[in-house]
Amino acid sequence: MEVELKETIDELESLKQSLTDPSYRYPIDKLKLRVERLAKFGNSGPLRRSKVKDMSAEVVDSNPYSRLMALQRMGIVQNYERIREYSVAIVGIGGVGSVAAEMLTRCGIGRLLLYDYDKVELANMNRLFFRPEQVGMTKTDAAVQTLSDINPDVVLESYTLNITTVQGFETFMSSLKNKSFSPNKQGSGVDIVLSCVDNYEARMAVNQACNELNQTWMESGVSEDAVSGHIQLLIPGETACFACAPPLVVASGVDERTLKREGVCAASLPTTMGVVAGLLVQNTLKYLLEFGQVSPYLGYNSLKDYFPTMEMKPNPQCSNAACLQRQKEYLLAKPARDAAAKAKMEAEASSSAEGPLHLDNEWDISVVDDDEPEGIDIKSSAALPEGLTRELPSADEFHTTPEAPDSAIDDIEDLRRQLDALNSS
Amino acid sequence: MEVELKETIDELESLKQSLTDPSYRYPIDKLKLRVERLAKFGNSGPLRRSKVKDMSAEVVDSNPYSRLMALQRMGIVQNYERIREYSVAIVGIGGVGSVAAEMLTRCGIGRLLLYDYDKVELANMNRLFFRPEQVGMTKTDAAVQTLSDINPDVVLESYTLNITTVQGFETFMSSLKNKSFSPNKQGSGVDIVLSCVDNYEARMAVNQACNELNQTWMESGVSEDAVSGHIQLLIPGETACFACAPPLVVASGVDERTLKREGVCAASLPTTMGVVAGLLVQNTLKYLLEFGQVSPYLGYNSLKDYFPTMEMKPNPQCSNAACLQRQKEYLLAKPARDAAAKAKMEAEASSSAEGPLHLDNEWDISVVDDDEPEGIDIKSSAALPEGLTRELPSADEFHTTPEAPDSAIDDIEDLRRQLDALNSS
Repeated sequence: MEVELKETIDELESLKQSLTDPSYRYPIDKLKLRVERLAKFGNSGPLRRSKVKDMSAEVVDSNPYSRLMALQRMGIVQNYERIREYSVAIVGIGGVGSVAAEMLTRCGIGRLLLYDYDKVELANMNRLFFRPEQVGMTKTDAAVQTLSDINPDVVLESYTLNITTVQGFETFMSSLKNKSFSPNKQGSGVDIVLSCVDNYEARMAVNQACNELNQTWMESGVSEDAVSGHIQLLIPGETACFACAPPLVVASGVDERTLKREGVCAASLPTTMGVVAGLLVQNTLKYLLEFGQVSPYLGYNSLKDYFPTMEMKPNPQCSNAACLQRQKEYLLAKPARDAAAKAKMEAEASSSAEGPLHLDNEWDISVVDDDEPEGIDIKSSAALPEGLTRELPSADEFHTTPEAPDSAIDDIEDLRRQLDALNSS
Repeated sequence: MEVELKETIDELESLKQSLTDPSYRYPIDKLKLRVERLAKFGNSGPLRRSKVKDMSAEVVDSNPYSRLMALQRMGIVQNYERIREYSVAIVGIGGVGSVAAEMLTRCGIGRLLLYDYDKVELANMNRLFFRPEQVGMTKTDAAVQTLSDINPDVVLESYTLNITTVQGFETFMSSLKNKSFSPNKQGSGVDIVLSCVDNYEARMAVNQACNELNQTWMESGVSEDAVSGHIQLLIPGETACFACAPPLVVASGVDERTLKREGVCAASLPTTMGVVAGLLVQNTLKYLLEFGQVSPYLGYNSLKDYFPTMEMKPNPQCSNAACLQRQKEYLLAKPARDAAAKAKMEAEASSSAEGPLHLDNEWDISVVDDDEPEGIDIKSSAALPEGLTRELPSADEFHTTPEAPDSAIDDIEDLRRQLDALNSS
């Protein structure tokens, strides 16, 4: 646009010079001034940054990756630049998906695949990312517009389609399988799928695709009252799939499938959705770049700032045939997995003979044996009041392992003191 | 800009009409075409939405507040539209402050006061909000540009200044005292101050101003390794002030004051900063609109998805004179506070004679008496390894009340079982 305006000014100048009648000069000067003002308005900074070939750790103001590459020097990530090799698919570019896409774009992810069929509305302006001038555009087009401006290094693929239709599902599947970005990659063409959709059918479609492709994915959701949300890691065969367990409805018993009915308007907040997107992408980064611990399930109850965690094992009676197939494969691969884990442990033990990596254990984290008996039933509580749905699924529907309490009791003395306090109260 | 371009086209047309020599028409037509293309380029949607007089709950795509007003119908907030009466000051428009400002803007906050002295750099692009074309602008100017486009209903005041200078601090104080937006408001002219700065001196300046003005504020911070953060509520006289307790450095012992040294580059991530901003603004909304529970302190350890909470009482030996004055006033007002609390409890008891509001107590939340003996010392642990700083301040520096564990032991039977398990192991 700047170049166009500059050329316009030059053309006006040559037009002025070629006019023999001086009375024409004034209107042309006026026009020139106007176009110059426009050029100045549009010239408050470079419209786009240029592409960057390698991620540099150099500490200069002009390096968009300096604060990310610093993660290596800080000892958090071993090789940050590997992020450019990864592909992430985001299904649903709404309040959570659009922010997740922006975060991954600013982190310099290699390739993003975006799926949505909806258009931007003014009613979306209470969430982050979309701007009023994008109203009427498809969410995928608007996202590509914004994201390519923010970071031209990211390869963006946008799919304006509904994955719950036959045609849409087929395109979804073939786009996930496409390996042209990383031909040598094992499995599908993407490294992780993030589900940021707002309805049950779409989640089941993502679940189906990921079970068929043996594709690790993360599910995310925000309650219709806007004040709670969750993320969940799903590894086909290893964890519960979305069909293994009933959807985790947080409250109020409103059927999620009816949420998009005419006249029904779910509440939403940029805060809850921003937090859920942040937790989702943080766990995606931990998964891709191998640092920290990826949460199998993390809830966010914003009224009480409570963050429940749990793990869900697959349901051997799952209704999804592809899930059952993945479960079978996972069990068959157990001996190989055990041998690899043992070899890794031995290698680590010999290389770190000088002592454990972390001397302190601030949060009382302990390693739980993977081979513990499956399906510890959680105590089934009494019937719930009408209109309420269980937050945690009941034990007879599928098997689950309750997590250790966040603040573990660390010695018998503590327990005795609590017992005394309860007895005396 | 659109109007300017349209007028330019009209002027070119009239110039063309006035030219007698037809050979001049071609270059003018060419110019007109060029300007028309520019006008079309800038006209992909309405550049700004118009102001909205009242917040409507009407469920139509064109209503930017429908999803927020739905919080009332969902029973979360009693009167959402009150948000338009509130003023929030944000100090530091960086990775946390800019996102907090955007969230409050999209929520339709009445008035935002923004303070920063820094300029936008390409090195900031790994966090949300700022765009590459804003590089070189002051952060306050760039923020006003973006925020006024997103929601023209919000009154924006921007202060390009450094609050740690004498002049800057004076302007900061007088801007907080200004009551022209809400002349009948008690106390200062703002309802809450959010500190989103990245250094110790600026935090101490916010602390000083808020202690002097008896102004409730929230502190936020992200660790220099980018993987943890926190928010903290500070009510002068009632909670610890920032000078009462040593800064909560999470790890590694790097002096926060040296972080902005030449060549030293702290890591940062859009995820951690987005989560901290979301938690900060969610607690701000809970505080302003009176729903849920405002967290006194909430930490975020992203490597383990651990969220520690605690409460900090003021230090009677605090070095800040204004803090000591506020502590004295708070103690003096205790009888009046107790009487008001008793009256409120009685009124609630008589109005809800039909039973408690929440029959279930999913998270085992219990009400703790406000009058518990002050200054329960937390057990001082052994000396830390060199280079590590305590996450929780040590007991001899100030008094603190440890929170009840997140997963409270709810009956004696549970305690007995745990005791047995520990004894048998």
